[in-house]
Amino acid sequence: MSGKLKTAVLGATGYSGLELTRILLRHPRLEKPVLLKRSADNGSADLADVFPALSGNGGYPLHALSWPALKQQGVKLLFLATPHEASRTLVPEAIAHGLRVIDLSGAWRLKQEQHRVIYGFQDSDPQTAAQLTERAVYGLSELNAESIADADLVANPGCYATSVILALAPLLKAGIVDRERGIISDSKSGVSGAGKEPTQKTHFVSVADNLSAYAVFNHRHLGEIVEQLALTQRELTFTPHLLPIPRGILSTIYVQLNRTMTPLEVESCFRTFYNGKHWVRVFQTPKLPQVQFSLRTNYCDLGFCLAEDGRRLVLISCIDNLLKGAAGQAVQNMNLMFGWGEEEGLQ
Amino acid sequence: MSGKLKTAVLGATGYSGLELTRILLRHPRLEKPVLLKRSADNGSADLADVFPALSGNGGYPLHALSWPALKQQGVKLLFLATPHEASRTLVPEAIAHGLRVIDLSGAWRLKQEQHRVIYGFQDSDPQTAAQLTERAVYGLSELNAESIADADLVANPGCYATSVILALAPLLKAGIVDRERGIISDSKSGVSGAGKEPTQKTHFVSVADNLSAYAVFNHRHLGEIVEQLALTQRELTFTPHLLPIPRGILSTIYVQLNRTMTPLEVESCFRTFYNGKHWVRVFQTPKLPQVQFSLRTNYCDLGFCLAEDGRRLVLISCIDNLLKGAAGQAVQNMNLMFGWGEEEGLQ
Amino acid sequence: MSGKLKTAVLGATGYSGLELTRILLRHPRLEKPVLLKRSADNGSADLADVFPALSGNGGYPLHALSWPALKQQGVKLLFLATPHEASRTLVPEAIAHGLRVIDLSGAWRLKQEQHRVIYGFQDSDPQTAAQLTERAVYGLSELNAESIADADLVANPGCYATSVILALAPLLKAGIVDRERGIISDSKSGVSGAGKEPTQKTHFVSVADNLSAYAVFNHRHLGEIVEQLALTQRELTFTPHLLPIPRGILSTIYVQLNRTMTPLEVESCFRTFYNGKHWVRVFQTPKLPQVQFSLRTNYCDLGFCLAEDGRRLVLISCIDNLLKGAAGQAVQNMNLMFGWGEEEGLQ
Amino acid sequence: MSGKLKTAVLGATGYSGLELTRILLRHPRLEKPVLLKRSADNGSADLADVFPALSGNGGYPLHALSWPALKQQGVKLLFLATPHEASRTLVPEAIAHGLRVIDLSGAWRLKQEQHRVIYGFQDSDPQTAAQLTERAVYGLSELNAESIADADLVANPGCYATSVILALAPLLKAGIVDRERGIISDSKSGVSGAGKEPTQKTHFVSVADNLSAYAVFNHRHLGEIVEQLALTQRELTFTPHLLPIPRGILSTIYVQLNRTMTPLEVESCFRTFYNGKHWVRVFQTPKLPQVQFSLRTNYCDLGFCLAEDGRRLVLISCIDNLLKGAAGQAVQNMNLMFGWGEEEGLQ
Repeated sequence: MSGKLKTAVLGATGYSGLELTRILLRHPRLEKPVLLKRSADNGSADLADVFPALSGNGGYPLHALSWPALKQQGVKLLFLATPHEASRTLVPEAIAHGLRVIDLSGAWRLKQEQHRVIYGFQDSDPQTAAQLTERAVYGLSELNAESIADADLVANPGCYATSVILALAPLLKAGIVDRERGIISDSKSGVSGAGKEPTQKTHFVSVADNLSAYAVFNHRHLGEIVEQLALTQRELTFTPHLLPIPRGILSTIYVQLNRTMTPLEVESCFRTFYNGKHWVRVFQTPKLPQVQFSLRTNYCDLGFCLAEDGRRLVLISCIDNLLKGAAGQAVQNMNLMFGWGEEEGLQ
Repeated sequence: MSGKLKTAVLGATGYSGLELTRILLRHPRLEKPVLLKRSADNGSADLADVFPALSGNGGYPLHALSWPALKQQGVKLLFLATPHEASRTLVPEAIAHGLRVIDLSGAWRLKQEQHRVIYGFQDSDPQTAAQLTERAVYGLSELNAESIADADLVANPGCYATSVILALAPLLKAGIVDRERGIISDSKSGVSGAGKEPTQKTHFVSVADNLSAYAVFNHRHLGEIVEQLALTQRELTFTPHLLPIPRGILSTIYVQLNRTMTPLEVESCFRTFYNGKHWVRVFQTPKLPQVQFSLRTNYCDLGFCLAEDGRRLVLISCIDNLLKGAAGQAVQNMNLMFGWGEEEGLQ
Repeated sequence: MSGKLKTAVLGATGYSGLELTRILLRHPRLEKPVLLKRSADNGSADLADVFPALSGNGGYPLHALSWPALKQQGVKLLFLATPHEASRTLVPEAIAHGLRVIDLSGAWRLKQEQHRVIYGFQDSDPQTAAQLTERAVYGLSELNAESIADADLVANPGCYATSVILALAPLLKAGIVDRERGIISDSKSGVSGAGKEPTQKTHFVSVADNLSAYAVFNHRHLGEIVEQLALTQRELTFTPHLLPIPRGILSTIYVQLNRTMTPLEVESCFRTFYNGKHWVRVFQTPKLPQVQFSLRTNYCDLGFCLAEDGRRLVLISCIDNLLKGAAGQAVQNMNLMFGWGEEEGLQ
Repeated sequence: MSGKLKTAVLGATGYSGLELTRILLRHPRLEKPVLLKRSADNGSADLADVFPALSGNGGYPLHALSWPALKQQGVKLLFLATPHEASRTLVPEAIAHGLRVIDLSGAWRLKQEQHRVIYGFQDSDPQTAAQLTERAVYGLSELNAESIADADLVANPGCYATSVILALAPLLKAGIVDRERGIISDSKSGVSGAGKEPTQKTHFVSVADNLSAYAVFNHRHLGEIVEQLALTQRELTFTPHLLPIPRGILSTIYVQLNRTMTPLEVESCFRTFYNGKHWVRVFQTPKLPQVQFSLRTNYCDLGFCLAEDGRRLVLISCIDNLLKGAAGQAVQNMNLMFGWGEEEGLQ
């Protein structure tokens, strides 16, 4: 017996799934993960056919999903990097088969019906779906570490949501935000956040030499953010933009403090909150994070500028949308679920 | 006699100067412009040596600046696409020699001493400088058309400032902005806005696959914006970002209305204000401008989203920083100064 | 009567079609072109809906194709910016209705059956197709100006083919190429050359930070090049690559001279051949063209380096694939067909 | 005693030096490397100040170079990621102090005087320089593994040279290349290959949306290639191009075989040659490497297409210029020098 954990991944052929697979393959606590596809006759036989960058290492066969086979292989943890409709169907089955699940989709992130509406879920068994929705733990590692440790269903956060929540949580918990004046997150994401499906929007010629805002007041991640931060929708304005880069998110967040503060006090608020949290880096003002700094890492980089009036605060929050915003945080959550160090396998 | 205007350009070897020269060369009201450099023995002899894209048309010789020579050639209008220190020195001389001047630098844009401080001007003749500062007309064509028409010194606006002022002016003039709550402009610019000088910041490897905020609360264009919109510095938060694209600006601007409005009312406010203004395009909500739409044009594209609460308003303002944000607007101002149609030579 | 020519464009919603439309709208010899779509109920009603960059000018309605309507409107010349299958069907109809046609697709470029095979044409009336194939003039403006002038069907060249043929023709016509040793064109193109259809290949994430070769020994433009230059397929190796840029082609072409020459002699060969040809710029060695220099122009830029041995010659040929490689050359050909200056409407 | 090797790096603030440092920090056989700068009073005190991406891990202090200090710290191996002039001065000193050296510059790669001329070395002690030139081993890991193992001075190959030599060596060793007809390498590199120094050439606006050839017949790496492959300069034409990407090299190489072969025979030639070599991946025709596939890996990816005539061969060779083309190969060479597995620390 190796004493190592056996995991499986469904959806390794997507951008997040690929990153996840790469991390799992190197993770010291894991056996080689089982790579799954929905059915035997669809898709490629090997992940290296989809991503030739993986070639030359003996292959990464994609197996058709079979619950008995997973049990037989000793799989204890299933990662889903699937569209949310698929996750909504698969998670009840997986839980019923005794697997713990980390779901990277938006299927189980939202507790409030009003926020779920935007997804238009069509559950075949609404009662089970309701129970699982209740049971699911929102997998923002730094905020919910304890409940993640005990969870059998972790809803891995959205990429934008991760960048915004981590920036705002320390200030809101400290009660120093003037919520009346409204909070604004002007967020910018690389194209991999839009998924691998080719569309006019993701065509190179549409993206290159361009920048565009989209889904203003209306993005799916808005619900996650307000739920997790206990804000009302009116208190948060969230504007996503599509950047001409493959990956990375930078959120520029605007808050007004409800009392005059010094930069040192603001920095201290962040440092205290994230004390001991490996994957959050607080920048010393006036240094600010840039997309490149956290690229290909699991870090969330936080920095800020405080106006001379001591009230207007501009926060900069950067993550790699495929890592801290997806696959990396999923592994961080796995580490929490199995009692390992948060940084294991993610260096 | 051709009846055509004779112009000169100093600074054609920079990005804005090149665009300006290209427009002037095609402008139906102009003779071929005189291209100038500061002195005989510095820099290239021909603009096509600097920009080989211009080759094959007989050459564009760069002449050493000489006031008597300009007079002899019949030059009436001088464009300065020079660093602000140079403009601060040259404009008094040019005006003294009877030339009208359109200055693309920041040298003469600011009326208030508190805003000029950031430039650190060292004027050899402070009295003349003060007089010219007073006389200079801020060349935002849509707002100041009448005074531009009569001006002998036009201070062509900054690129960011153009995008922000054009978006906010209609709402502020209509008195519907809740200025107490603060206005935010989250602006993003292509790299040509940082100038042609090679620096670590403009190195391809620093910019590509990146996004960064800079000069938060502290950018030179902030003063222009608050002066022109009659705001206090506390009422406007302005955050510029460097985009991995060669050119184009998108400003995402957040305001709160002081009364509940419908999208139609907001759109009407913009349409009324810019009625008859050729170079501003108002987008019908929910359509939003993108950087690509106004690229290589003199348009300022304006669009917006209004929250369901009828109060929170997100404005999107796009321009080409080298055209409407620099050379294009300079030509538009020339058209106003000489009584021609605003769109002439800019199609 | 305006004395201006009435034209129509089918396929304005593609990249080449859009560029073509933009040029035709500004062309001094033309009335506003009629913009066509295949049928009334498919696609957008107005070109500005597809390309918002065109908005603000009163609209560009797309009309369903109708031969009687075209006749009634007085249309004399039809541009087809359609897929080659569509052009193969439409051209016989257009010619039968008395229209002159410039076809931007590959449908009518190839005379030899062996080269046409790769397209897999399925003609409903093979006899007419054969006649038109015979009659079609290959529209490389600089080489075939006389026959283009008289043509009623001009097959506008492929983008790669244009860049390669223009570089090699002077040397081959002069008989100074050692064809035995083989000619190599290593060509690189921006993504718009792959068309507007979203595919995995044109997805931003697939293209950015990448370079790839494709269709080695097997690209459709190979046939055009060897036919026009009277080469055998063995004499030319052609390797296209996909560049992470929206537009532009650079071909690096390798030939061996059959006698020792000086750089001056080589340059003279090019200059003599293209004497009086406005749209070809010959660079003086050691200056070399770059993609940016001819971008958004109708120029083909040619430069070269000759090895010290006086035999090995590296040619660099740059064009904008959407202009000299498509729409620009189509307009140049129209100018030839109607006896106007080659540069009219293309400055 | 840890039993681990102590290394030092001079030049960690450059692109290659940074990559090298990152690998060394994770290498299981090494202690934390000593990071050096030329003198105490120049440059940053900590590498994380230069590359904020490194922050949050306790710092990476940069120490002034001192031979006694290195000895005292027990450093056995020195990596130089310095300009070639600096390496030319420092290597004799390092060797005299008993250190083994891996030099990433071009200072010690060339044996033949005629090839060294292009560097213009000015050696203060020509005799020692000549001896070291003789003793230096060209560190192309796959070709010179045995002599690298024993070397005290390894001249790490140029990035272009690595991509070209690895592609050609199997064919030339097999004697199947028709060298009379000439070999061509059309190579394309990302901008990091041009170094971190900001210049007009590396300015974002100069590189983006562009492609350019440079140093045709005249690049410094040409000498390395012909020396290592025992070619004459006339037998190889080498054309480098600057790609609008941060990193990655793709070389498209053209050879004629001296006898007719099948694709299987060609593939077999490569597979046999690189049998057991971990860091070379041979692609099965018609699959071809792309820049993205080997990016951020130490792989050299090789693929090919053979014309139907069985003679004309197009090779595609891809590497990451900062890894297999610099830092990765340096570590691979260290592994060889100390008897470790070639893949250690490089996964």
